Amino acid sequence: MKSVLKEVKPTPADRKRLNRVAAELIGQTNAACAKLDIDAKAMLVGSAARDTWLRSERDIDVFILFPEELPREELERQGLAVAREVASAKGKEQFAEHPYVTMKFKEFDIDLVPCYDVAKPSEIKSAVDRSPHHQRYITGHLTSELADEVLLTKKFMLGVSCYGSELKVQGFSGYLCELLVLHYGSFKKLVESASGWKPNTVIDPERSYPDPSEAKRMFEKQPLIVIDPVDASRNVGAAISMQNFATFVRACQDFARGPSGRFFFPKPVRRLSARQIQATLERRGTAVFCVAFSPPDVVPDVLYPQLRKAERTLVTRLTRAGFEVMRSDVWSNSRALILLELAAAKLPRVRTHIGPPVSIEVGNFIRAHLKSKRKFAGPFAGATGKLIFELERERPNSRKVLEQALREHATLGRHVGEAISKSYRIYEGNQIVKLCKDEEVREFISEYLTRCLPWYR
Amino acid sequence: MKSVLKEVKPTPADRKRLNRVAAELIGQTNAACAKLDIDAKAMLVGSAARDTWLRSERDIDVFILFPEELPREELERQGLAVAREVASAKGKEQFAEHPYVTMKFKEFDIDLVPCYDVAKPSEIKSAVDRSPHHQRYITGHLTSELADEVLLTKKFMLGVSCYGSELKVQGFSGYLCELLVLHYGSFKKLVESASGWKPNTVIDPERSYPDPSEAKRMFEKQPLIVIDPVDASRNVGAAISMQNFATFVRACQDFARGPSGRFFFPKPVRRLSARQIQATLERRGTAVFCVAFSPPDVVPDVLYPQLRKAERTLVTRLTRAGFEVMRSDVWSNSRALILLELAAAKLPRVRTHIGPPVSIEVGNFIRAHLKSKRKFAGPFAGATGKLIFELERERPNSRKVLEQALREHATLGRHVGEAISKSYRIYEGNQIVKLCKDEEVREFISEYLTRCLPWYR
Repeated sequence: MKSVLKEVKPTPADRKRLNRVAAELIGQTNAACAKLDIDAKAMLVGSAARDTWLRSERDIDVFILFPEELPREELERQGLAVAREVASAKGKEQFAEHPYVTMKFKEFDIDLVPCYDVAKPSEIKSAVDRSPHHQRYITGHLTSELADEVLLTKKFMLGVSCYGSELKVQGFSGYLCELLVLHYGSFKKLVESASGWKPNTVIDPERSYPDPSEAKRMFEKQPLIVIDPVDASRNVGAAISMQNFATFVRACQDFARGPSGRFFFPKPVRRLSARQIQATLERRGTAVFCVAFSPPDVVPDVLYPQLRKAERTLVTRLTRAGFEVMRSDVWSNSRALILLELAAAKLPRVRTHIGPPVSIEVGNFIRAHLKSKRKFAGPFAGATGKLIFELERERPNSRKVLEQALREHATLGRHVGEAISKSYRIYEGNQIVKLCKDEEVREFISEYLTRCLPWYR
Repeated sequence: MKSVLKEVKPTPADRKRLNRVAAELIGQTNAACAKLDIDAKAMLVGSAARDTWLRSERDIDVFILFPEELPREELERQGLAVAREVASAKGKEQFAEHPYVTMKFKEFDIDLVPCYDVAKPSEIKSAVDRSPHHQRYITGHLTSELADEVLLTKKFMLGVSCYGSELKVQGFSGYLCELLVLHYGSFKKLVESASGWKPNTVIDPERSYPDPSEAKRMFEKQPLIVIDPVDASRNVGAAISMQNFATFVRACQDFARGPSGRFFFPKPVRRLSARQIQATLERRGTAVFCVAFSPPDVVPDVLYPQLRKAERTLVTRLTRAGFEVMRSDVWSNSRALILLELAAAKLPRVRTHIGPPVSIEVGNFIRAHLKSKRKFAGPFAGATGKLIFELERERPNSRKVLEQALREHATLGRHVGEAISKSYRIYEGNQIVKLCKDEEVREFISEYLTRCLPWYR
């Protein structure tokens, strides 16, 4: 663990550099408020404020706290005015998502986020208003020894690819790592406990729910429930997908049996050559489609849920049409991709259409199909007693089903649907190799084809 | 109904002819007993004895009743001696299944069956000993009006292809038709009641079970339970398959809504030409296999259960290997056939192998596949949290799976397994047209491809 810590813990020089930039930003933000005659004050939050940042992380989050009484419009107007003043002083400005400003300054990624200074976290007006409370809670509880444990935890999460609550990742946030270390007391104890987690596990650091089953009910279907100590109505683990939950639990089980550096520093994904990709696709013997289009101009937290919605819609449509979708995935850089892998591109023309059981009235079922031009055979009784028609399948060709589904933009997520309505292209089978001229696409496809828990690579 | 009855009821001349032959047989059997100094007496049983035979039926069943005390070997020896004496007098002898004799005489199919004359049906030594009791029960209850209702019932069963308790058919026996008419009082009332039958319906004419649920438990999984009035431990409907049960119930529902002659006199199966068969097979777009072999020399009641067992084994093996069997069937004349229709002949080389859920120990699962040469990808967590490996399928070719399964004779039924071990041939796809040079095979394949409840033809 010590050698891991040595790798990931910022050096005093790293720390000095970051603190200097942070102090500078806080000063400039407060100065901007004064200059613009705005009643607000800057606050450093996040891992930079708590000394829980990994050496590889370069994030500084400055929140601009406004009085609760200020109308929302005013908060947005004044907040952006202050943020712009600071950003333009740094020479770089970038709008990510209204109403906050992100910018690159020196080697740091800086967020300037206006929010309300709310006394009670239960009365917040938007999610960002919670951050100052998180900041106070963690700094009030975390010792420097525990901060080291947080670093190990974060690096472990990163290594097993579960780190980050952004919707692209659907994993564990930094704040969640801090809470888990506070709750269990160390990285080792967290790993031991998490080895036994089952889906719908409840962790309630401040015992906000006397009865854990109440919390379970409240956050039903969420694999990990960590009650926010500053707001009992919030699950800090809400973003975690079942996939990442399972990955983390398996990682903890394996680590508990055999601790190793490979959990923190896994081998990178093996990058396949175009030729290897082609050979692997052929060897799998499946029917692969890749829907490619220009991604809409929205932040990843908006884009990825929509990409996954579109993916789900396409998988559902193909499945309903009788196709077996073996695996699928989404991805985006300057291009957005929805990858769909089917057991077969075509189905037999005949399909079995099964009616209700013996005891149920069947007149409508028979009338609906008896004179159908699509009828091959039937009605006849099957081995279970249910009546059967054998009918002609409307779309035995998966590509046609896919194209039809892509025409129904409304079911694909708003921005993604619009982007697809403008233009898309389907790459099929070996054509996917063409896409791999883009190095990042090649990495995505390589990862897909060799997919493996990182510590088993 | 009258016009149906007119068609199916034997004329006085028909009846006279049959009665004359039956009386002659009874006389000759008793004479043979006297001649051979054997203590036994002949009894006419079955529909011929009860005036419940359809004009198209030509069966005369003569039972030779022996004293209960006679040892089984003696019964068989003496019984066959008598039967042979009678048969040879008729000039024709044919052994079907030990220990009884069947023969063709004039236009009639005659069974000469030795049995014990058992006082209490609950103490019978073999199933045939029940027949004299059935004979007495039916003649004791059936009026000539009810006999007409039995004729309608039998013809209806024939028309909707549910008539016959032999294992090739798995339908309703003549005795069962008689019991149902006695129980409900008429064909019409039977049809009305049967329209509401659900699987596991109990009919107990003599109220042998005060609690019907006891009968349900005793004959669990049998779709129709008709307690034999002469032996409460027997279900007269034991032979009925779920398929035939459902067919009969649907026929009754449809007949109750719209009575018609087409239930009694359905159109014959449309015989397809070789060219039509080929075109239909191609249009279905499925992968059809027909395993052909010389049937073993056993009676249909032995052959058909074994053919179905072999069919089930092959379907299970193909299904386990990942293939979708859409339909299958068996058939036999001078050739035995097992027909298997698959959605596709080949599967992709990759298959998804899913491990236990998150909360279950997974070490063995991982060790078993991590270093496998058959590994494409994995382990990784799927959307449900279960770990997944993508492995190479051992047999992506259905014909190879089929051939492998056909090599394991022991799983195919004794005689059928032996016959297949000697020789078989697989006809695939269009090759099946070759088999259709045999007119009977052509009829079988035509029926398969146009399968339909008879009254909807």
